[in-house]
Amino acid sequence: MALSRLVVDIHTHVYLPRYASVLRSRTAAPRIFSRSAPSGQTEDRLVILDNEPSGGRPIGPQYWDRDEKLKFMDKHGIDISIVSTANPWLDFLSFSAAQTLARELNADLESYCSTSPIISSPSATPLKRLYGFGLLPLVPGAPSASLPSAVTDLAASHPHIRGVILGTRGAGKGLDDPELEPLWAALAETGLVVFLHPHYGVGGQSWGDLDNGHVLPLALGFPFETTTAITRVILAGVLDRYPRLRILLAHSGGALPQLSSRLASCIAHDPVVASRLQHDARWYIGRLYYDAVAYGSAELGFVSDTVGRAARYDQQNGAHKAAVEGERNEGSKRMLFGTDHPFFPPLNDTDKWRSVVENLEAIDSVSGWSAEDKDGVQGGNALTLFNLV
Amino acid sequence: MALSRLVVDIHTHVYLPRYASVLRSRTAAPRIFSRSAPSGQTEDRLVILDNEPSGGRPIGPQYWDRDEKLKFMDKHGIDISIVSTANPWLDFLSFSAAQTLARELNADLESYCSTSPIISSPSATPLKRLYGFGLLPLVPGAPSASLPSAVTDLAASHPHIRGVILGTRGAGKGLDDPELEPLWAALAETGLVVFLHPHYGVGGQSWGDLDNGHVLPLALGFPFETTTAITRVILAGVLDRYPRLRILLAHSGGALPQLSSRLASCIAHDPVVASRLQHDARWYIGRLYYDAVAYGSAELGFVSDTVGRAARYDQQNGAHKAAVEGERNEGSKRMLFGTDHPFFPPLNDTDKWRSVVENLEAIDSVSGWSAEDKDGVQGGNALTLFNLV
Repeated sequence: MALSRLVVDIHTHVYLPRYASVLRSRTAAPRIFSRSAPSGQTEDRLVILDNEPSGGRPIGPQYWDRDEKLKFMDKHGIDISIVSTANPWLDFLSFSAAQTLARELNADLESYCSTSPIISSPSATPLKRLYGFGLLPLVPGAPSASLPSAVTDLAASHPHIRGVILGTRGAGKGLDDPELEPLWAALAETGLVVFLHPHYGVGGQSWGDLDNGHVLPLALGFPFETTTAITRVILAGVLDRYPRLRILLAHSGGALPQLSSRLASCIAHDPVVASRLQHDARWYIGRLYYDAVAYGSAELGFVSDTVGRAARYDQQNGAHKAAVEGERNEGSKRMLFGTDHPFFPPLNDTDKWRSVVENLEAIDSVSGWSAEDKDGVQGGNALTLFNLV
Repeated sequence: MALSRLVVDIHTHVYLPRYASVLRSRTAAPRIFSRSAPSGQTEDRLVILDNEPSGGRPIGPQYWDRDEKLKFMDKHGIDISIVSTANPWLDFLSFSAAQTLARELNADLESYCSTSPIISSPSATPLKRLYGFGLLPLVPGAPSASLPSAVTDLAASHPHIRGVILGTRGAGKGLDDPELEPLWAALAETGLVVFLHPHYGVGGQSWGDLDNGHVLPLALGFPFETTTAITRVILAGVLDRYPRLRILLAHSGGALPQLSSRLASCIAHDPVVASRLQHDARWYIGRLYYDAVAYGSAELGFVSDTVGRAARYDQQNGAHKAAVEGERNEGSKRMLFGTDHPFFPPLNDTDKWRSVVENLEAIDSVSGWSAEDKDGVQGGNALTLFNLV
């Protein structure tokens, strides 16, 4: 198969066996516990947040067994997966425990990937089927000075790890914390891709009394959290200071693209921040990467529009240029297929997972994307971003 | 001027003199107070929330003086405004105080509109330059049984009031409160347009320590709040039970359009809600109305895409139909120009307000909208929605 036609899943999670053991040993969230299901059988359940609706969710080997990941990939025609530990990562640990577990899990992940099958490809360097995002001991109380070496060690000695997955809390004060400056510098220097992913949700106080299961925290709280985190990063000038930093946003950037012109307007009208940034807020949209996990083609097309128009906003508050032909195509180059596996399993057994099929169909149906654009989003862009070719 | 070319501003606020007096009499937010400005002059400031950043914002006659509203309209070529009381409406009052003040303010607003100039138009019935959204005494503790008569009295005796502006807290438990059932029934029955508008913000716990002025609460917190409120309304089945209810969403629906396919996916994958609604979540997007206050043409085009595609999702979890030519045009019929005046004034004196110019330019630049679509969004759709023709 031609490299340009490979399907690469860049949003796919694992709880490696060592991590699952830690969760099983715990009595408070995040934890894995066993209970008797209504059917009488024993079932494992995962609770990742306190007071999680519906008593958490079922969990099974698809979270930790590599064969299950490969079977899932085969079933859906996925050639390569860039796997990441699922939330909440190491957030619940002390810094020293997080440091130890990060080191162990990164070694586990490197082995998980490096011993995975080779795909048949015309590439000079044979490609594996699995690559990964590593973990950093970025937990509340993590000393600022410890972060650069964690990043450089990860990059230097784990050839199959091509990025890091990051939650939104940083060292406890969020990602606009000035203490994180050495972290951004090291990440920009190594070229590791930063996968920014939600966990806590934003807005939980506003979900109300009606039992809506996991719908509000997942459909709204998650994207609100990502949107808030990246907006704070932008407002803190991080993207101005680290032009080589590569940040990939979960769930197609949440609400950021739709709120980006409003954000630009609010910045321009607020004396506190109006002169702080080098560019109009919409310029930064074009500096980021987006998974294509939005379940709809209009959403994907729109995200690519906002990425593609970014070049028009390359000066703060300045005269904006007119739209240019091909912006939607240009924007597609920063979008990458993902599945969110093993989350969103089908309610009933089906041949394929609806969540995956919908995301693939969405890419295929974006109005204005060429066949080449679609191939790029399905896999080609990932090969480039993660330096696989 | 042809009716179809009129410019109608449906998102424009007032604090009527009676309301401003109430705010001046208060010592806690919401309040208006006077202070010495750095220049030495006395300035009035508005604080609408506790702990508001930057000590609130400047306020002046543009909030209460009708001549200022008309001057602003003239400067920007706005023929008709459908004015609404700005947040926080009556939320800080007891039910009985809210009932009295609502009655008085609705009478004031009716007079504000009915005595406004007539525009020259070829319409059989001459049109005024001002119409309004009234207030309901929908505050914490409002008895459910009191709401229908408040709605019907408003509709029956205020010919220039064509809708109500509603915050997101309802009678204290949000808009998915089963106690509000008589309210929705009465609103659907009268045909008053419900303008759903944020005030409290969602996500305030997540804005962090960096001083970003009003940017995060306004750019993110406001649209998150609207998104959360309307999602809860949808999940509670309100739109299934009241097909004639007409809800207009502030700020182009916040993040709802971009999160709508994710919402559909989360609903389909959650056993608690998967079978609750009559339609796929995306169907309800096409049942709502959206102001065109998004400051960008890509955003507006995208909202119209999601409105236009809604018809494809007219059965729950069912097979979805393929995209149809002209969906973006169809979707534009539910979008309506607005300014958010007198908020977002220019930082420096300029001939026109950037916030208004950007919203007009955004409408004019939407790719795929015909001249007729643009005229509709600028005013024609409002004439229809508010029964002005």
